[in-house]
Amino acid sequence: MDLRLYDYPPSGNCLKVRILLGHLGHPYERIETDIFGGDTLTQEYADKNPARRTPLLEADGVYLPESSAILWFLAEGSPYLPANPLGRARALQWLLFEQERVGAIAAVRFRLHTGSVTPEDPIADKMRAAGRSALASLEAHLTEHMFLVNDRYSIADIANYCYTHVADDAGIDLGDYPMVESWLRRIEGREGFVNDLAPLPETARVGRGLSIYG
Amino acid sequence: MDLRLYDYPPSGNCLKVRILLGHLGHPYERIETDIFGGDTLTQEYADKNPARRTPLLEADGVYLPESSAILWFLAEGSPYLPANPLGRARALQWLLFEQERVGAIAAVRFRLHTGSVTPEDPIADKMRAAGRSALASLEAHLTEHMFLVNDRYSIADIANYCYTHVADDAGIDLGDYPMVESWLRRIEGREGFVNDLAPLPETARVGRGLSIYG
Repeated sequence: MDLRLYDYPPSGNCLKVRILLGHLGHPYERIETDIFGGDTLTQEYADKNPARRTPLLEADGVYLPESSAILWFLAEGSPYLPANPLGRARALQWLLFEQERVGAIAAVRFRLHTGSVTPEDPIADKMRAAGRSALASLEAHLTEHMFLVNDRYSIADIANYCYTHVADDAGIDLGDYPMVESWLRRIEGREGFVNDLAPLPETARVGRGLSIYG
Repeated sequence: MDLRLYDYPPSGNCLKVRILLGHLGHPYERIETDIFGGDTLTQEYADKNPARRTPLLEADGVYLPESSAILWFLAEGSPYLPANPLGRARALQWLLFEQERVGAIAAVRFRLHTGSVTPEDPIADKMRAAGRSALASLEAHLTEHMFLVNDRYSIADIANYCYTHVADDAGIDLGDYPMVESWLRRIEGREGFVNDLAPLPETARVGRGLSIYG
């Protein structure tokens, strides 16, 4: 399968896909897509992905957006997606959890960086509270389990890793969640794991209207 | 498989599961769970689902929460979930779309009903704008397709149906989205389709702190 990834290096959502592709060892062409430089605002990009988001996977000429859908697609038939129906449903549950709840960490981190909220803003406080609630749910689960699904490393862990591990950037102290921290280290110790998340650039402050989520 | 559904009749998320079970013709025990009557606040319920949400599926003694995860689990191997990897990834993409974007319709409908926002509230306006944006995305897709994935009815349609068809309750005129309306009618015409969504009761106004989402 011929793979091309439209990728913004500082995006946690894009990192999810790079981590999985690293584990799978599948070669792919990486097309750096500068969301603050207007790369997603062209008609050419909209033709590939009307939502104008990254990451976007091109697989044998077909375009697939949304990081979790890309993870699922790439992980089918691999050890990174459970084979049994209940395990698959649990994996999906954790992907939905990530979007709905860990997403708050991503949102406050991004908005602090772009300056669309200040650390003291009540909105930032509210989003951080939502992020802490997500971390508390992870902490409770990881107190009893090594990984999120069936005690076995999967795309559920990869998806939840990407914004959890930068919670400090959102003003949340990960030291309050020791089981989450141990889990992050377990993930980082997996064979083939590469975290090459780039820092959000200064130019991110210019384009407040854009979202890196997707 | 022995199925039991913990179900709140006015919840669109619970309706998703009932619609699919209706199509599958799989018998199940329905346990009405009054979220405003405190049924999800017991320790017994928390032991089954720490998130205290409905719907919750019990399958041969195992508990599975989250409507989309339940749909996926039940639809495996049926005509309601595509068999090929790309079709499955697209189905997942539309489930995520539903949670992130159609969810705004659910949220404003619920908050208007419980009185936690008024129709004139700027927050209600903002949520309605998000809901309209979701409907516009559906409209664009359905202009070219009969159903959301591979032009074939699936759990992606069921999931997106449940809050879309009550957009009027959120103060959004579905008449502005004729392709969405035709699609709703196509879904309702499918064999075995049953929409038994109960109206939100007056008691919903009491328990503003509770959420029916899940």
